[in-house]
Amino acid sequence: MAGDDCVFCKIIAGDLAASIVYEDADHVAFLDARPLFDGHTLLVPRTHVETLADLAPDAIAPFFTLTQRLSVAIPQAMDAAGTFVAMNNTVSQSVPHLHCHIVPRNFKDGLRGFFWPRTKYDDDAARDAVAAKIAAAL
Amino acid sequence: MAGDDCVFCKIIAGDLAASIVYEDADHVAFLDARPLFDGHTLLVPRTHVETLADLAPDAIAPFFTLTQRLSVAIPQAMDAAGTFVAMNNTVSQSVPHLHCHIVPRNFKDGLRGFFWPRTKYDDDAARDAVAAKIAAAL
Repeated sequence: MAGDDCVFCKIIAGDLAASIVYEDADHVAFLDARPLFDGHTLLVPRTHVETLADLAPDAIAPFFTLTQRLSVAIPQAMDAAGTFVAMNNTVSQSVPHLHCHIVPRNFKDGLRGFFWPRTKYDDDAARDAVAAKIAAAL
Repeated sequence: MAGDDCVFCKIIAGDLAASIVYEDADHVAFLDARPLFDGHTLLVPRTHVETLADLAPDAIAPFFTLTQRLSVAIPQAMDAAGTFVAMNNTVSQSVPHLHCHIVPRNFKDGLRGFFWPRTKYDDDAARDAVAAKIAAAL
């Protein structure tokens, strides 16, 4: 999906229009064209990698330092109270080029409620069994 | 809110029960007691900081390296197709101690659809104006 077929690679190459918020040698940040709220920004690495799992070890610090910087600047610019910072990996990932959403949020902005359809574990033992499975996979 | 009053500080201190997935000198990862799906994990820094904006510069690489590691291990352990990796900062943040959600996801698991209530900018000029505001705040 890299290069010719990837929408984000085209934006990075300047072959597709986008509202650029920031760019440097390794990253481009631009506005999501279909935002949750105005100012909803996507940060992408210039190098085509599909998911967070594929980001090179030495790319993690610069990518998330920039994510942090955007999480300060975006609410400041948009006069918002907070941010939602998220990555969908594989599932619900419309473009298979790693992108971190940084979305300005306000209290009572309508996202709360349907946003976290919480469930429950049957009991503590069931929960501990799941934790042990993940610990074993680490 | 640090220390005595913070639920996550209590979990970190071992004063409140949780299903621990991983811990090291600087981090604890444990299962969310009210998960979106089984295996929904929260990664927290041991140091009480409220939001992503408050994470110390030298804490970013280890925190997100571990986030990446969890985003590989959790779908493997839970036999899931992908992950949702997210932080709510201030708004929708039930516990004011930075926590990164790493949630196993599967196709058609029910979260898609209501999950991203997208809007539109009036036109490209409106979008560019928002991008310029954020760029100026960076």
